[in-house]
Amino acid sequence: MSVSTDVDSDVLIHPTACVETSELGAGTRIWAFSHIMPGVRIGKHCNIADHCFVERGAVVGDHVTIKNGNMIWKGVTLEDGVFVGPNVTFTNDRFPRSERFLRIRGHQPQEADWLVPTRVKTGASVGGGAVIIAGVTIGEFALVGAGAVVTKDVPAHGLVRGNPARLSGWVCECGRPLAPRAGMAVCAHCGLHFLEQDGGMIVRPGERRS
Amino acid sequence: MSVSTDVDSDVLIHPTACVETSELGAGTRIWAFSHIMPGVRIGKHCNIADHCFVERGAVVGDHVTIKNGNMIWKGVTLEDGVFVGPNVTFTNDRFPRSERFLRIRGHQPQEADWLVPTRVKTGASVGGGAVIIAGVTIGEFALVGAGAVVTKDVPAHGLVRGNPARLSGWVCECGRPLAPRAGMAVCAHCGLHFLEQDGGMIVRPGERRS
Amino acid sequence: MSVSTDVDSDVLIHPTACVETSELGAGTRIWAFSHIMPGVRIGKHCNIADHCFVERGAVVGDHVTIKNGNMIWKGVTLEDGVFVGPNVTFTNDRFPRSERFLRIRGHQPQEADWLVPTRVKTGASVGGGAVIIAGVTIGEFALVGAGAVVTKDVPAHGLVRGNPARLSGWVCECGRPLAPRAGMAVCAHCGLHFLEQDGGMIVRPGERRS
Repeated sequence: MSVSTDVDSDVLIHPTACVETSELGAGTRIWAFSHIMPGVRIGKHCNIADHCFVERGAVVGDHVTIKNGNMIWKGVTLEDGVFVGPNVTFTNDRFPRSERFLRIRGHQPQEADWLVPTRVKTGASVGGGAVIIAGVTIGEFALVGAGAVVTKDVPAHGLVRGNPARLSGWVCECGRPLAPRAGMAVCAHCGLHFLEQDGGMIVRPGERRS
Repeated sequence: MSVSTDVDSDVLIHPTACVETSELGAGTRIWAFSHIMPGVRIGKHCNIADHCFVERGAVVGDHVTIKNGNMIWKGVTLEDGVFVGPNVTFTNDRFPRSERFLRIRGHQPQEADWLVPTRVKTGASVGGGAVIIAGVTIGEFALVGAGAVVTKDVPAHGLVRGNPARLSGWVCECGRPLAPRAGMAVCAHCGLHFLEQDGGMIVRPGERRS
Repeated sequence: MSVSTDVDSDVLIHPTACVETSELGAGTRIWAFSHIMPGVRIGKHCNIADHCFVERGAVVGDHVTIKNGNMIWKGVTLEDGVFVGPNVTFTNDRFPRSERFLRIRGHQPQEADWLVPTRVKTGASVGGGAVIIAGVTIGEFALVGAGAVVTKDVPAHGLVRGNPARLSGWVCECGRPLAPRAGMAVCAHCGLHFLEQDGGMIVRPGERRS
């Protein structure tokens, strides 16, 4: 079942990986002992490290980095440029039960709407060991701190930490901390300018580099 | 070492799994890159997802769902109908040390009683990324929230969250929240009736469906 | 790619493991579905359990126990006798982003100094499911509680818990709790004597057994 041939001349699949789809974008790499289910589509130039699992119905954009030990479930969308640190836990069900056992106990089968979608937006990073509760949206270029348990939406460029995760700062596209003052911020590392808007931070119009 | 033949006509073992026991109950499925040790017994109609490990001395009942990336150690009992979300961490040792190194430093070998048992009772669910400290009992149909660190027992039908985990509500057999009032509760989803008893919730006598 | 021959008569490599180095010390064992990268050096009498990953540039001493589901990154040093519980998350980057995507957005490539080293000192233990933020040092024979998120250094023999982790006690070499009084402590289990020094605990001079 382990597929060691390349789907495309640019695609790399480790010989121990189990890849059951041919829809991998150019330049994408799948590493050791990872398992990509049938029907999955993964974008271009992604890197999926060891011991990962991607389920049919997950959405993985381009230039996404998925570190070791991750599971990307049906209902989870990782937009372009997302970084998922090691051992992150996504969830997709608010009322998890062992389904077959519920039926034995006389409960109705779960409705079709059990699945709760989660979205990680363009360029955002999820730190290692974080837990993402089903249903949240993590904004563009946000940063979820390692070990955080995210129970509600994270604004664009927001930095959250803790259990439950709370907003504790802002980060630039390049990942460095921002120190907003009087409704503005300039990244000391890369020079990108930001404005406060609706309680969040946005890149100053005209600044976006692509 | 990877075993791709079925132990039983009803049993499914993924070709990349390493299953070293033949004591799998009818209808049980073992998925990719999972490792079941010699001497393990697993009940009927269980589902053990990718990248799991089950150690000799673990007890796994019937209709148990074990999601990806889990390790079920010696000393851990999962009763019938338990749901273990992805990346849960069970532990079985209160004083973990690298054993051989301790001996080199002149310490006595660890006593036979180092192992601290953990029990997850019938129908309970453990959310993804939760950590269960050795020695706790998670009550019937309890729900451990994703990312919780459970340091003490959880009552039947209790919902716990946080690090350390604290009781923050009650859930029905079907997993939905209960809102007890005047010592009683009725599940708005499935209609099951509950009574308060000794600070916990029990299903009203005569209500049990099986 | 799976290597089932022994590198050394004393070394054990599970047939499903992928070991790409020959620099494993005598008596070291690598278990199922683990992946050791080229160029890695691992000390003597280590035990690396299932579903682990060790990256070139990681340092692993002698008599180290690494339980299941761990990733030891470049920049992480595990000194002699360290115990790493299951599902621990190490990190090695304070500003994690999907590198290729940053370049597309017009950012400079990350400097060579992106890597932040982490050190776990002799005999220390990291409990299951803990998260270790890049850059910390965990002192000799310290104990990181299961599920803790370690954001700053841990003193020798210190016990830390929580998210973020806080010092909550002291432990002996043998792992048992110490109850210091008037600047001294004696382990009730193994009899080792300790003195307070600079706000931490040290083994009384002359007591070290090796």
